[in-house]
Amino acid sequence: MSTAELGIAASTIWVVLAAILVLFMQAGFAFLEAGLTRMKNVGHIAAKNVLILGVVSIVYYLVGFGIAFGDGGGGLVGGSGFVPSVDQLLAIGAEPFSWFGSVPGAAGYLFEVAFAAVSLAIVWGAMAERTRLWVYLAFGVVFTLLYSVVSHWVWSPDGWLYTKGMQDFAGSTVVHYQGALAGLAGALLLGPRIGKFVDGKPQPIPGHNMAFTTLGVIILWFGWFGFNPGSTLSVDFGGVGFFAYVALNTNLAASAGVLGALTASWIVIKKPDLSMMLNGAIAALVAITAACAFVAPWAAIVIGFVAGVIVVLGSLLVERVGIDDPVGALAAHGMSGVWGTLALGFLTVPELADKLETGRGGLLYGGGFHQLGIQALGLVAVGAFTFTASFLVLWLMKVTVGIRTEPHVEGMGLDVSEHGMWGYPEFYIPVPGGYGTEHGHRLVSHHPRDAPASAPAPVHG
Amino acid sequence: MSTAELGIAASTIWVVLAAILVLFMQAGFAFLEAGLTRMKNVGHIAAKNVLILGVVSIVYYLVGFGIAFGDGGGGLVGGSGFVPSVDQLLAIGAEPFSWFGSVPGAAGYLFEVAFAAVSLAIVWGAMAERTRLWVYLAFGVVFTLLYSVVSHWVWSPDGWLYTKGMQDFAGSTVVHYQGALAGLAGALLLGPRIGKFVDGKPQPIPGHNMAFTTLGVIILWFGWFGFNPGSTLSVDFGGVGFFAYVALNTNLAASAGVLGALTASWIVIKKPDLSMMLNGAIAALVAITAACAFVAPWAAIVIGFVAGVIVVLGSLLVERVGIDDPVGALAAHGMSGVWGTLALGFLTVPELADKLETGRGGLLYGGGFHQLGIQALGLVAVGAFTFTASFLVLWLMKVTVGIRTEPHVEGMGLDVSEHGMWGYPEFYIPVPGGYGTEHGHRLVSHHPRDAPASAPAPVHG
Amino acid sequence: MSTAELGIAASTIWVVLAAILVLFMQAGFAFLEAGLTRMKNVGHIAAKNVLILGVVSIVYYLVGFGIAFGDGGGGLVGGSGFVPSVDQLLAIGAEPFSWFGSVPGAAGYLFEVAFAAVSLAIVWGAMAERTRLWVYLAFGVVFTLLYSVVSHWVWSPDGWLYTKGMQDFAGSTVVHYQGALAGLAGALLLGPRIGKFVDGKPQPIPGHNMAFTTLGVIILWFGWFGFNPGSTLSVDFGGVGFFAYVALNTNLAASAGVLGALTASWIVIKKPDLSMMLNGAIAALVAITAACAFVAPWAAIVIGFVAGVIVVLGSLLVERVGIDDPVGALAAHGMSGVWGTLALGFLTVPELADKLETGRGGLLYGGGFHQLGIQALGLVAVGAFTFTASFLVLWLMKVTVGIRTEPHVEGMGLDVSEHGMWGYPEFYIPVPGGYGTEHGHRLVSHHPRDAPASAPAPVHG
Repeated sequence: MSTAELGIAASTIWVVLAAILVLFMQAGFAFLEAGLTRMKNVGHIAAKNVLILGVVSIVYYLVGFGIAFGDGGGGLVGGSGFVPSVDQLLAIGAEPFSWFGSVPGAAGYLFEVAFAAVSLAIVWGAMAERTRLWVYLAFGVVFTLLYSVVSHWVWSPDGWLYTKGMQDFAGSTVVHYQGALAGLAGALLLGPRIGKFVDGKPQPIPGHNMAFTTLGVIILWFGWFGFNPGSTLSVDFGGVGFFAYVALNTNLAASAGVLGALTASWIVIKKPDLSMMLNGAIAALVAITAACAFVAPWAAIVIGFVAGVIVVLGSLLVERVGIDDPVGALAAHGMSGVWGTLALGFLTVPELADKLETGRGGLLYGGGFHQLGIQALGLVAVGAFTFTASFLVLWLMKVTVGIRTEPHVEGMGLDVSEHGMWGYPEFYIPVPGGYGTEHGHRLVSHHPRDAPASAPAPVHG
Repeated sequence: MSTAELGIAASTIWVVLAAILVLFMQAGFAFLEAGLTRMKNVGHIAAKNVLILGVVSIVYYLVGFGIAFGDGGGGLVGGSGFVPSVDQLLAIGAEPFSWFGSVPGAAGYLFEVAFAAVSLAIVWGAMAERTRLWVYLAFGVVFTLLYSVVSHWVWSPDGWLYTKGMQDFAGSTVVHYQGALAGLAGALLLGPRIGKFVDGKPQPIPGHNMAFTTLGVIILWFGWFGFNPGSTLSVDFGGVGFFAYVALNTNLAASAGVLGALTASWIVIKKPDLSMMLNGAIAALVAITAACAFVAPWAAIVIGFVAGVIVVLGSLLVERVGIDDPVGALAAHGMSGVWGTLALGFLTVPELADKLETGRGGLLYGGGFHQLGIQALGLVAVGAFTFTASFLVLWLMKVTVGIRTEPHVEGMGLDVSEHGMWGYPEFYIPVPGGYGTEHGHRLVSHHPRDAPASAPAPVHG
Repeated sequence: MSTAELGIAASTIWVVLAAILVLFMQAGFAFLEAGLTRMKNVGHIAAKNVLILGVVSIVYYLVGFGIAFGDGGGGLVGGSGFVPSVDQLLAIGAEPFSWFGSVPGAAGYLFEVAFAAVSLAIVWGAMAERTRLWVYLAFGVVFTLLYSVVSHWVWSPDGWLYTKGMQDFAGSTVVHYQGALAGLAGALLLGPRIGKFVDGKPQPIPGHNMAFTTLGVIILWFGWFGFNPGSTLSVDFGGVGFFAYVALNTNLAASAGVLGALTASWIVIKKPDLSMMLNGAIAALVAITAACAFVAPWAAIVIGFVAGVIVVLGSLLVERVGIDDPVGALAAHGMSGVWGTLALGFLTVPELADKLETGRGGLLYGGGFHQLGIQALGLVAVGAFTFTASFLVLWLMKVTVGIRTEPHVEGMGLDVSEHGMWGYPEFYIPVPGGYGTEHGHRLVSHHPRDAPASAPAPVHG
């Protein structure tokens, strides 16, 4: 191989492995969310992340990538490169992959589709435990299209926010804030889960498995090392090996988010709440996503710590205004996404802005309000578009077919109603008078104590 | 480093990381299978995957690699390079690693041993919940040898199926179909689990944890990005960065498999069955494994979708003919492996076949029946060899020492009988009259409510 | 890119991905330990690994790296490079990163911080289920500093043990033995868990979830492919692609450890104990960590197998002398760490020692007792320092603020006392008379059977 080919080989290794890490984040969302919700919905909650990959990968291959990175459309929407061919996928930088000049088109697609899937995963977090299965399919398709439009605005060199100078390195706005806004639309249209508010007062509905949530958080943290550093899209963007610096900032921010949420929860709710601490890591990762390539390590720590505080206060606020967000997605991805997008306007180091050709430093470095204004404009524009479009589509779905499960279905759990099986059939111990034991709904138990009569009696029994 | 050395460095990074991803698939199998089986066997089922790594790694180092890729043996079995030395492992392409010309021998070994371990993991899926522990050790050794022989046929440049032109890029036949055939032999010799068939009618024995199964599936999906794209064995096979294209096809097929299985289960069994949907992803990954480097993205979608349908119909068929395959391995790995191996004969794009020097396109591209015939020949030959040899060895084990646990052991669960401990000791709530509560078999409970008398009374208690 | 830049790019990909794998090991420790302990502490046990990342990353950024790899201090402690700047992190080999000459400083930091976090994770294993939360924060900071000092001794080119010729390739001594010694100090000061010893006789307190432990072990095995092979710190240390050889030795040792522990537990305790088998893999990985770059594959197998035996006998010994080590960390990391550190003195292949400039082969290759003596000296010095310092600091914490939870807190579980929530709220089935049901401590149940009265009655109910 020539040195040019070796450069492509190295960048392709990096981008493909980063994409794989980001795709694996679906396991993180599955376990984060399954842990923060109830046992009766566990199969439904976890398995929807496999469905997300199924829907998004195909829609994004057919049309999403072309919308996001294709030519034409006047900065509003890409209009070329749908259903890319074998030749386009094998070439380096062929349309619609011209923005991905260091790797084959296939690598560009793989990296970007993983991001679309993450954004959709966030949506379902806020709508958990009460949404009908068909909505996951139908709105999954719609949201993939909305996502692709916004990513065109911010990340395509033709996009109108890109040309204005908006900076969102790996997607605090594009991926996280946007996912949270669609989730907010869904949560408002669905209403809270049964029992969440009694006489207007919020009731705790604790997640059923903190070990699952912990695993989910560490998987997400792990996957984020693909998410942020992979967004260099080559091994020499910003200098050879610059992605290592992005990884360092990502890790410092996440760590500070853990400490920020722990501190805030100790002060505000008087105990070091585990789920808050875990969500603190996520919120910090969301916040550093926009700025990870532009700020100093101390600033990454500040951004992460503040995000940890935001997730505690934000989760309480969401609850107080009467919205039921079972996994805390609105605070962790929405509010933190806003914070991260703006923080970049304050904290960008001129030296890094320069190196990366973004022009100028943040407000604290004397760069003025210019960048901050553009960031705010982007937040308003993306927010208005995504919330409005999502609300409209979900409202149409609600008034036509219906998006929420029936109350008895919600009470019984979505595993049974939507899929005909329990997620954990053996953990439902038959309690006299308990629901599901008397009327044929309980599945056959396979505990030793309930072994079928045809089985030989245990020797010691 | 020179450009030649840099090429080796890049390929070694890629192949070693791909091998690591494939080795991690054992966690996927552990959780897929633990989730699809019963609580009383959970420790046994999960931990056997650690045992698989232990047995396979050492047997494959001692003799397996030499059988698979050594010289001599007239195309039937390799006969050199056993117990490779430090020098052979450090060199590039020294015998028996001559086929691995882009990476040190050690990288070649590491990648191939991970595949052998995956194949063995499939075997145990079909034999779950009723096999004695010694069989895992003894047949594990035997199967590693059988596997090595077949991989010589198909993947060694000396192999008789290779020289005939059989194509199996990453092992739909070698790894998956073969594992399923040995599992079929085992399932037939073991017979169904107690209670699986009552008066000849199959009874549902639901898996105990759909969250575990979901995690298992996403880990396998993740690991498959090592499995298929890593099978380029270098960063420039098929063109620099071609492995990204293989990864894209892998991801599209898996996604289509999710949708195919969801659709088929909605139509056939009238509900979107979660375990079917999850197995649909696996079946699609199995099917695309042979063809991932040779087909267009649309064909990857077709291959995956059909595999998703196959797994639903196939699982029902296996049950109908009276075979008890607790995790659906026969349909997901066996039938899908056949489909994938044949699909390549239909759908190979001439341009890719050319580039990869395999000669000609598939039937649908006017390539005729030639390739299809070779693929079918390979399936028949591998099937006859692996099924017969596995059946014979397991039959010998059955009639001499015995391969199935005693009925009371099966009733009680293999965690206790085979290992002397429960996998989940605290989830066995003492129910009056329940098995294991009256006769000393229940382990000490560590629920707060059962705190030993010597512990101080809780302050609020 | 030039060939020099391509070399940096390749090494940075490798080192950053290795660091990511090592950081992911926290998920492995979380699940290994959560599985080996009791349900009532599961959230606390699992989530502490997220806290570890939070504390270590920031302390190590501020001062740890400078202590470990900075200049000055006469071989005892590094004294430069605290709070490294953006410029230092982006440069190749700028102080304090001069030892990391193939990658940007940021990559060096990221790799090393992951090791510090692993060492701290080991400490908490031995202190599980009875330590107050504040200790995790305070001693976490202190231990990060102690760890940094010892890593200066052994790994900095200025370090006094390094200059004497001590070899510890990836940290059997620095990371594992050291973590176990601090854990031993903690376990002694804490005393055993309530109920562990009755009249001086050890009582089994089985872990609650063998599936979790299995997942933890496979994640650790996976992460160890970053730990050991990544310690080459470049793609050409020891020859281009030498890291593949290190990975092979790592995998063989772990496999042999599984078989060693299985064999030993079958002989000694008459059953193939699952948790022993799983810990056998860990012990073997610990043991091969020092020697992985210096020994032949057969020696890796021997080192791993012996480590598997050591973990069985060692765990029994620890229990016999009255120490309560809930997860077996003292045997798996401490005793195996000693074995691995010494094994290198016996088994180093001269050819590899030469290549790596360490000078001479092990005792079995005629290299004499020289290396063995240095290894023993290192063990004694590190042992004396870490144990004494940890004991002193923890003793001070014990006599001032207190390090152990109150007995009623321990009985109830640390999830509730330390964090105000259960890790698994729904698995606590309300049993009449059971603790926590009568006095308001039980959280609201969300089982269908306990649906709030305001919920509509189920249609079939």
